[in-house]
Amino acid sequence: MNKMNDIEVIINSKRYNLRGYESEEYLQRIASYINNKHLEFKKQDFYKMLDSEMKNVLMEINIADDYFKLKSRIKELEAENESKSKEIYDLKHEVISAQTKLDVGEKEIEALKNELNETQKKVIRLETELMDKNRA
Amino acid sequence: MNKMNDIEVIINSKRYNLRGYESEEYLQRIASYINNKHLEFKKQDFYKMLDSEMKNVLMEINIADDYFKLKSRIKELEAENESKSKEIYDLKHEVISAQTKLDVGEKEIEALKNELNETQKKVIRLETELMDKNRA
Repeated sequence: MNKMNDIEVIINSKRYNLRGYESEEYLQRIASYINNKHLEFKKQDFYKMLDSEMKNVLMEINIADDYFKLKSRIKELEAENESKSKEIYDLKHEVISAQTKLDVGEKEIEALKNELNETQKKVIRLETELMDKNRA
Repeated sequence: MNKMNDIEVIINSKRYNLRGYESEEYLQRIASYINNKHLEFKKQDFYKMLDSEMKNVLMEINIADDYFKLKSRIKELEAENESKSKEIYDLKHEVISAQTKLDVGEKEIEALKNELNETQKKVIRLETELMDKNRA
């Protein structure tokens, strides 16, 4: 549980004392983000002509616009994540299927080696028998 | 290229005429998001006691807080995406390596079958030869 903090921030050249659970560092990041927006707005001539109510609404809309842009970025990232999860699922199946084929193949190799071994022994037996016959 | 739109929005019970490239639907979504915030704020007693400047700053901070929360969610999602990409890379390598082993195994099976076949033929030749000897 975080403790309550009293934090002084300067927003748009004015000092505010805020009380909350957020860390000092986090609130200063927010203040600095908002101050950059004020600076950007003040660079534009049309903004100077607006009354303070309109200025406030534009500022709210501008920050909310940033928020909604991130929201749609999150949708993209979530879709990307989902498609990667599907790819991982498919690849894991492919690995399992290849592993199964490998096991089958290894057993076949083992069986063939045994059969070959037995057949080679048979050849040796027959050759020995034949040599004995020839010698007789 | 989008065309300029004149859009009327109602924010905090006041009518504003905005001009911009954003779609009507998008701006109304933003307005509705901001209006919900105003409604939430008005439910709280402390808010009523604040002067309008403080109210504005709190609203800006509140929206910016939503924005920063999404920012950190994006970081998480990006990290998740990156780790999934690595997993995909590793799994693809695993599939390739299993495929290579399968190819090697198949060649070994082929070679063993040929060798077995030759050895079995030899057995038949030797058995025939031996039968001839026995008959002689």
